[in-house]
Amino acid sequence: MKFLRVYMNQLQTEWEEVPSPYEHLGGRALIAKLLLEEIPPACDALGPHNKLIFAPGLLGGTGVTTAGRLSVGGKSPLTNGVKESNAGGTAGDTLGKMGIKAVVVEGQPVQGTFQILYIGNEKTELHPADNILGLGTYATSDKLKEKYGKECTVISIGQAGEFLMAGAGICVTGEPGQHSNHAARGGLGAVMGSKGLKAIVIEKASGKTIPFADAELFRSASKRFSREIIDNPKLGPKGGTHIYGTAAITAAVNEMGAFPTRNFSKGSFEDSINLRGETIRETILAREGKIGTRCMPGCVIGCRHEYVDETGKPIVGTMQYETIALVGSNLGIGNLDDVARLNYMCNDFGLDTIETGAALGVVLEAGSVQFGDTEGIFGLLNQVGEGTPLGRVIGNGAVTAGRVFGIRRVPAALGQAMPGYDPRSLKGNGVTYATSPQGADHTAGNAFGARNEVNPLAVEGQKELSLKLQIISAMLDSTGLCLFARPPVISDPQLMAEMINGIYGWGLDKNDLDALYRDVLRNELEFNRLAGKTAKDYRIPEYMREEPLAPLNVVFDVPDSELDSVFDSL
Amino acid sequence: MKFLRVYMNQLQTEWEEVPSPYEHLGGRALIAKLLLEEIPPACDALGPHNKLIFAPGLLGGTGVTTAGRLSVGGKSPLTNGVKESNAGGTAGDTLGKMGIKAVVVEGQPVQGTFQILYIGNEKTELHPADNILGLGTYATSDKLKEKYGKECTVISIGQAGEFLMAGAGICVTGEPGQHSNHAARGGLGAVMGSKGLKAIVIEKASGKTIPFADAELFRSASKRFSREIIDNPKLGPKGGTHIYGTAAITAAVNEMGAFPTRNFSKGSFEDSINLRGETIRETILAREGKIGTRCMPGCVIGCRHEYVDETGKPIVGTMQYETIALVGSNLGIGNLDDVARLNYMCNDFGLDTIETGAALGVVLEAGSVQFGDTEGIFGLLNQVGEGTPLGRVIGNGAVTAGRVFGIRRVPAALGQAMPGYDPRSLKGNGVTYATSPQGADHTAGNAFGARNEVNPLAVEGQKELSLKLQIISAMLDSTGLCLFARPPVISDPQLMAEMINGIYGWGLDKNDLDALYRDVLRNELEFNRLAGKTAKDYRIPEYMREEPLAPLNVVFDVPDSELDSVFDSL
Repeated sequence: MKFLRVYMNQLQTEWEEVPSPYEHLGGRALIAKLLLEEIPPACDALGPHNKLIFAPGLLGGTGVTTAGRLSVGGKSPLTNGVKESNAGGTAGDTLGKMGIKAVVVEGQPVQGTFQILYIGNEKTELHPADNILGLGTYATSDKLKEKYGKECTVISIGQAGEFLMAGAGICVTGEPGQHSNHAARGGLGAVMGSKGLKAIVIEKASGKTIPFADAELFRSASKRFSREIIDNPKLGPKGGTHIYGTAAITAAVNEMGAFPTRNFSKGSFEDSINLRGETIRETILAREGKIGTRCMPGCVIGCRHEYVDETGKPIVGTMQYETIALVGSNLGIGNLDDVARLNYMCNDFGLDTIETGAALGVVLEAGSVQFGDTEGIFGLLNQVGEGTPLGRVIGNGAVTAGRVFGIRRVPAALGQAMPGYDPRSLKGNGVTYATSPQGADHTAGNAFGARNEVNPLAVEGQKELSLKLQIISAMLDSTGLCLFARPPVISDPQLMAEMINGIYGWGLDKNDLDALYRDVLRNELEFNRLAGKTAKDYRIPEYMREEPLAPLNVVFDVPDSELDSVFDSL
Repeated sequence: MKFLRVYMNQLQTEWEEVPSPYEHLGGRALIAKLLLEEIPPACDALGPHNKLIFAPGLLGGTGVTTAGRLSVGGKSPLTNGVKESNAGGTAGDTLGKMGIKAVVVEGQPVQGTFQILYIGNEKTELHPADNILGLGTYATSDKLKEKYGKECTVISIGQAGEFLMAGAGICVTGEPGQHSNHAARGGLGAVMGSKGLKAIVIEKASGKTIPFADAELFRSASKRFSREIIDNPKLGPKGGTHIYGTAAITAAVNEMGAFPTRNFSKGSFEDSINLRGETIRETILAREGKIGTRCMPGCVIGCRHEYVDETGKPIVGTMQYETIALVGSNLGIGNLDDVARLNYMCNDFGLDTIETGAALGVVLEAGSVQFGDTEGIFGLLNQVGEGTPLGRVIGNGAVTAGRVFGIRRVPAALGQAMPGYDPRSLKGNGVTYATSPQGADHTAGNAFGARNEVNPLAVEGQKELSLKLQIISAMLDSTGLCLFARPPVISDPQLMAEMINGIYGWGLDKNDLDALYRDVLRNELEFNRLAGKTAKDYRIPEYMREEPLAPLNVVFDVPDSELDSVFDSL
């Protein structure tokens, strides 16, 4: 396995044998370690000392179902702490097959110049990006596929990343005919912009396969893993995740009073029924769109539904629950077509829909445009792509928008906007938002799935639940697995060990893996500590502790002492 | 002595005997202690738990020359740490005479409602501010003086404070016929706005005098103090400070390569000769403006020069060196009339000229308006008063402007913009900027005056110099003294003890006072620590350590270890 080092100041690339401390690491685990070892924690996230890392998980490229996620990492310009954000698409699988453990982008070129990094089977080069500058991610991907071949993978930023906006994400293309994906959170698109990197093009890995240490062990373990997912009543062909996508949960979140509505001022939305997975499915089927598509090669879940307009023309490849909550109910919008178009615009500009929806919610609270005024909101979002001052404020996320407009009701933790669960009604998520080294992140440890085990409104048990979930997240993000694919490896942690041992022959057991997952959090917390984060940074905003959230009229009341002790048993 | 508590949520006021821990404290010392005791350090600076404190120094109201400065304090929305900012005018003197040790404004009224606090000799009341809302500080002061009498003091915010901009200051009127003054730094105008307080009107203290504990001791000490200032060759009637104002130093700062030019990209300015105190004086004399006026009753220095336009009409009451540097050379403007008009606009909107000049410098670097394009810059600044999105960005200061426009060359420390001395060529100031609990502040410990004792370009000696200066600043800001009046009390610290003992009869000696001054810094550092500040927050921006500053081509190279140990001997 190799590291591909990309030196943007010299516009050169270099291959490096993976140094031994990184040998057993992939994805988020690798990123956490690399950040701690190579990046001065207090550095300017958009300066020359930050690095941008692309790393498949440990299972990447092996053909394990749902295990092809690409982790992207660096110091976040949004949280000023560690950041890993991952996406589906073909990049994780392809890099894994090529034996590339990580692409590490370092330094900065002459200000304002942009490059394309080409990673081929035979050669690796940097090409000037002049002719795609200023384009959105859709046009960028299309143009580059036209030039480099439609089987290649394109990783790119849109206008938001070029403008160094802290709400900018990174777009990753999927299989031919499938839509793109986004490593959206934490402003890594701005880091890519600051590196002068408009796009990465990865040739299809031709004739390359991973040399398995124990092919038989791997085959039986990965087969069992796949089978258990297919047989899982929630995930299989008849499961809610496949049938309704992530938006399967809209009704339940609304019911529990945690559905972000009008800048998190309410926990239920009067038009939530329009935003359910059921409604999405019916609408798509009636318009003859595609149902149950996938974001990664070989995925057996297929949770995506290509959302189409009234004429059957695709708008977005999938409408995620988080997007629906943040640019839907949070903005007072209860119409799927409007949400889809806002989603499209975010995707094209290369913006995190969560951060951008939260920023728009703050701007609406400031009052120049009303909640639910769809045309007004389109106008606001459009300014992000244009780079107007207001657009730049929105593109920089919720905290900046709050600062600029003097709004203190900003739903964010550690500088990053909250996803689609108000922490007052789902306190386990509040604990994760407040304590995760990643900031407010649903993928860092989402308590929604455990709502029947731990009372979402109680203080008791949240701390333990959050830690458990955060460790599981570290596992998923380090192996490249989709969040939905966790049941088989949670019920039998040894199954993960078998897959890994089958590939690499490391002879790990489940305890070794547990230590590895915990180390991810330890390294991340340490990086943040060295970057200057203290307990005071790991907090839920003041107003959420004081303003009761309708309809349940609850505040976030998990004591600080509980937050501060989440990692005591790490 | 009394505290006046103002409860903005109930719109009520209450008198309180000064609790004993505060008895010996005034101005900044009182603010530091009150913040530490009463404000949750991690609170939202613009939320209900912050407090806004107005406090004269220990010498306030006694008639000691130059000792009538009013300290304003609270948690800063700009630095998220402790903040004390002080201003001349008649407020400090009047509150002192009235026996008011502090006005403490707490809570918040219904959002968007604004009040006027009236402090009379007979009564204290809150009045609705409806008819002055949206007005600048000039019109606000005029209207309130019209209504309440021209002898009263008006403390007010302009549009910037109403908009909760983190670059907003607080305006304090002077004696009739004299111009206003500004407690400009740290965003305290936004805190005043967040309290729904548009203005405070203080009736002239009629027939009230301080009961002196030892009138004879006080008289002889304060007389000697005054005499020594008059006899000081720099401060007296023939001194540079009186003759040329604070801008007496323009040439010297430019000469040493520390004169902020075009967003701190150079340390000398080709048109600096136009911005010298000498040029100001000549221009004003030629136009028949007033020279050597004062900001406080009884000041024997008189460093202010009323800057007038070509027709002899006053523009601003004084043009401070910091303003000249930040909205002059820092924006590429080398014309005094233009600087005066930008100064006027900042004063009227209620903006800190330092923070606003630095923010404008960052915006110019982003490129939509060129350095030196005066009309373009007027247009930008005008937007602050209008509250456009771009105006709000600028009004929120340099760090926000940098974030929004993706500019990493932001001259700020602890979130606050640097004043008119580039720390690369005046490293002692860099040490103060980076370590002062107040953030980058020239009044927190300005090494310029010691440039002949400690080499401004050397690392050695800066740490010790900065600490010494920071302790002196704590003394000045806690007693209400003007920065210029320090020589007599530095050369004989017992002189200060005599003045204080003459007033209060506390029998303090110079060692007691030294302990008191040091406690100011200790309390402030502790507040910041509890607010979450760590060594990583007390830093000079990365680019200033790496980008050499012309013409001397020097970087800021005082090691972090030196910064971190400044207070070891506190």
